[in-house]
Amino acid sequence: MSATPDSAVRAYIEEHRSAFLEDLAEWLRIPSVSADPDRAADVRRSAEWLAAKLAETGFPVTEIWETPGAPAVYAEWPSGDEGAPTVLVYGHHDVQPAALEDGWATEPFEPVIKDGRLHARGAADDKGQVFFHTLGVRAHLAATGRTAPAVNLKLLIEGEEESGSPNFPALVHARADRLACDAVIVSDTGMWSEDTPTVCTGMRGLADCQIDLYGPDQDIHSGSFGGAVPNPATEAARLAAALHDADRRVAIPGFYDGVIELTDRERELFAELPFDEAAWLRTAHSYATLGEEGHTTLERIWARPTAEVNGISGGYQGPGGKTIIPSAAQLKLSFRLVAGMDTEKVQQAVRDWVAARLPAGIRHEITFWGATRPCLTPLDHPALQSVVRAMSRAFGQKIRFTREGGSGPAADLQDALGAPVLFLGISVPSDGWHAPNEKVELDLLTKGVETAAYLWGDLAENGRSTQ
Amino acid sequence: MSATPDSAVRAYIEEHRSAFLEDLAEWLRIPSVSADPDRAADVRRSAEWLAAKLAETGFPVTEIWETPGAPAVYAEWPSGDEGAPTVLVYGHHDVQPAALEDGWATEPFEPVIKDGRLHARGAADDKGQVFFHTLGVRAHLAATGRTAPAVNLKLLIEGEEESGSPNFPALVHARADRLACDAVIVSDTGMWSEDTPTVCTGMRGLADCQIDLYGPDQDIHSGSFGGAVPNPATEAARLAAALHDADRRVAIPGFYDGVIELTDRERELFAELPFDEAAWLRTAHSYATLGEEGHTTLERIWARPTAEVNGISGGYQGPGGKTIIPSAAQLKLSFRLVAGMDTEKVQQAVRDWVAARLPAGIRHEITFWGATRPCLTPLDHPALQSVVRAMSRAFGQKIRFTREGGSGPAADLQDALGAPVLFLGISVPSDGWHAPNEKVELDLLTKGVETAAYLWGDLAENGRSTQ
Repeated sequence: MSATPDSAVRAYIEEHRSAFLEDLAEWLRIPSVSADPDRAADVRRSAEWLAAKLAETGFPVTEIWETPGAPAVYAEWPSGDEGAPTVLVYGHHDVQPAALEDGWATEPFEPVIKDGRLHARGAADDKGQVFFHTLGVRAHLAATGRTAPAVNLKLLIEGEEESGSPNFPALVHARADRLACDAVIVSDTGMWSEDTPTVCTGMRGLADCQIDLYGPDQDIHSGSFGGAVPNPATEAARLAAALHDADRRVAIPGFYDGVIELTDRERELFAELPFDEAAWLRTAHSYATLGEEGHTTLERIWARPTAEVNGISGGYQGPGGKTIIPSAAQLKLSFRLVAGMDTEKVQQAVRDWVAARLPAGIRHEITFWGATRPCLTPLDHPALQSVVRAMSRAFGQKIRFTREGGSGPAADLQDALGAPVLFLGISVPSDGWHAPNEKVELDLLTKGVETAAYLWGDLAENGRSTQ
Repeated sequence: MSATPDSAVRAYIEEHRSAFLEDLAEWLRIPSVSADPDRAADVRRSAEWLAAKLAETGFPVTEIWETPGAPAVYAEWPSGDEGAPTVLVYGHHDVQPAALEDGWATEPFEPVIKDGRLHARGAADDKGQVFFHTLGVRAHLAATGRTAPAVNLKLLIEGEEESGSPNFPALVHARADRLACDAVIVSDTGMWSEDTPTVCTGMRGLADCQIDLYGPDQDIHSGSFGGAVPNPATEAARLAAALHDADRRVAIPGFYDGVIELTDRERELFAELPFDEAAWLRTAHSYATLGEEGHTTLERIWARPTAEVNGISGGYQGPGGKTIIPSAAQLKLSFRLVAGMDTEKVQQAVRDWVAARLPAGIRHEITFWGATRPCLTPLDHPALQSVVRAMSRAFGQKIRFTREGGSGPAADLQDALGAPVLFLGISVPSDGWHAPNEKVELDLLTKGVETAAYLWGDLAENGRSTQ
């Protein structure tokens, strides 16, 4: 398999595991919520903490990269080997909003280890998965006796992923020379389950927006005026309801333009996975499946575009009733996109659709928070095979293939850097991304460290073929 | 016209106007919001304040009537004349919620007089219109030299009208003996405008409810699960959107059962009113009309049943985006009903419709806050003619006929007491019922006092024919 004895890697990881977890907990205590302007200082503190930690790990170059929004962290560790391939690891240091009253059993920014799990906002998405690379590269060095990695290792850890990475494409294009690489490793995805390790081959894209609807200049009496003037809450509901047709296909004209349909082989690979609908529903905390007609649940979440209502509000929300026509209403929508879709065209299709559907007397504003492109890596790509081999050594199992329903700026990296994008993630569906009580499985986190420790050697041997 | 010289009534009112307004302001300072459980003590304080003030006015009997909810105030002042008709005045002492941040120019529970208007929550709906009867009956006595009214005068001022009067029907049925009367005068309505005084001949009914929808047990990631499980915010929107068909008719099966359609004569009378759509839209703070096809705006607000979304909520409502499928969503709906509709049947139709429309995986609860029946008085009713004459003397103008789009428990009184229900209101559409900056026009409030002062003599002369 490799010149590196795997036992040396495992011993090194075991020795340094406690200190690694203590460091991770320290990082998780920083509430780096990029969506909340009040947390901007915390997002910056998170970036500075990581840069310092990467320097301590041994990266000779660590930098804070400013953007018009939150700062990213860049680090570089040249191999020293002539002709070594260059690999760029991508992740993010910002997290989703979280508050105890949302249903957390413990404070979301006070990490707790219990029953082999580390609970905290960001434990899986994405601080835990970024952080396994720190111990991973140290284990790689320790086990091989090297003083620098077998590849030229670069890290780019952004600070606005949970806000749709609005400044990331511009950052990547502006810094394309520094970021130049032979392959991108994205550590911001999950795998099938604890028992079925998988490599992800693509992510959905994302376009999300807020639509504000304005009707009367103030709330008005539903008796005196009801039935005779437009109601912005009703119109918000009519928009949200019109997102889907009776077959739960997205009903926005032009939405499906360019969608790359699944091949029969891909549908077969999906169908071979040990999908247990009841178990999956438990991880979804849901009581039934519902989605686009003609597709399985896995196809719906991995390979089909969607429209979801993330938030809707308007009018009275206090106790009891209040017989008003509200002055305003708001929709927060997100669209997941699949390979072949164009984010700008989707945004324009949504804008046109909203404008065409609202009656006279309702004004509207629509704000897109940014867009993330979808991406997809061919199943037979040589660098993908390196990831599969490294995982296989860490997990001691056959590695299968999945896709990721969530979104990351992987496609921006692929486009700007002209490099293939590979996914290395150890999170499982029950980790509760974006939900209360997010956690990461400590055993899997360790397997992530181990995979990272094997990967650089394998890519150095096989990486030239990835270009 | 009458034995009472109108100038004596006017002089008495002029003399006591300042003290009357000071008293009213004191009452308006009590935030008697019946929908808010935290305001229960204030609603009680409002009842006690009114009972004391009615005793001071001269009513020999004043009582607080308890209900399972908020207390009502009852007062009685026997005429002493043998064979005098008995009249029951109905109003309410509770008010809609109000907070400065809703858009009030001044504190809603700190009355301010400015430019001939009294601004406060409850100024028009309904404390001002209840209160004109106190000075009205004193002016009636002063001008006629009587020591008791020409009619047996009863007042019933409830405390839960803004919460749909859930306990009012039971209270009226339980106390029907005490409330027995020849006519009910409801002072909780408006008139056409400052320039066009009108008598209202009917009110719409009301059934309002809250529908809670539950999907996943917690918010879940819209990337990991989006497109494959039901979203309660989407389902809330689909329900709200399905309330109306393409012609903006209410689409709930059975909703229109029993509706008494307008006669040609009634449509003509509506059409004769000086309706200025642009001016009406200004009072509605709205920018366009929209409603049931085939009906004018006046028909829509007075004589057609409606469904309105009073509130909708679900999912993330903070700054920026949050890519979740929310765990729950909520709708607050109100239905205005017209004569011929049965409130219980409407509630059942709504329950059946909701249950039939939700997909598997969405649980729901529906809570009706209570229901108010619609009512309608024939245009040629003799007691209605007394009201028209009294108003005509106060306003010095021809009195026209309207209906009221809002709702009150008038029909419960009509049914329980077997007495005709008449409407005496001086509020105008710009008064801002249920809205920020509610006010009452002081000149019209004075005309209300004057009308009340004339009405008891007229009804004593003509009231026997009302039975």
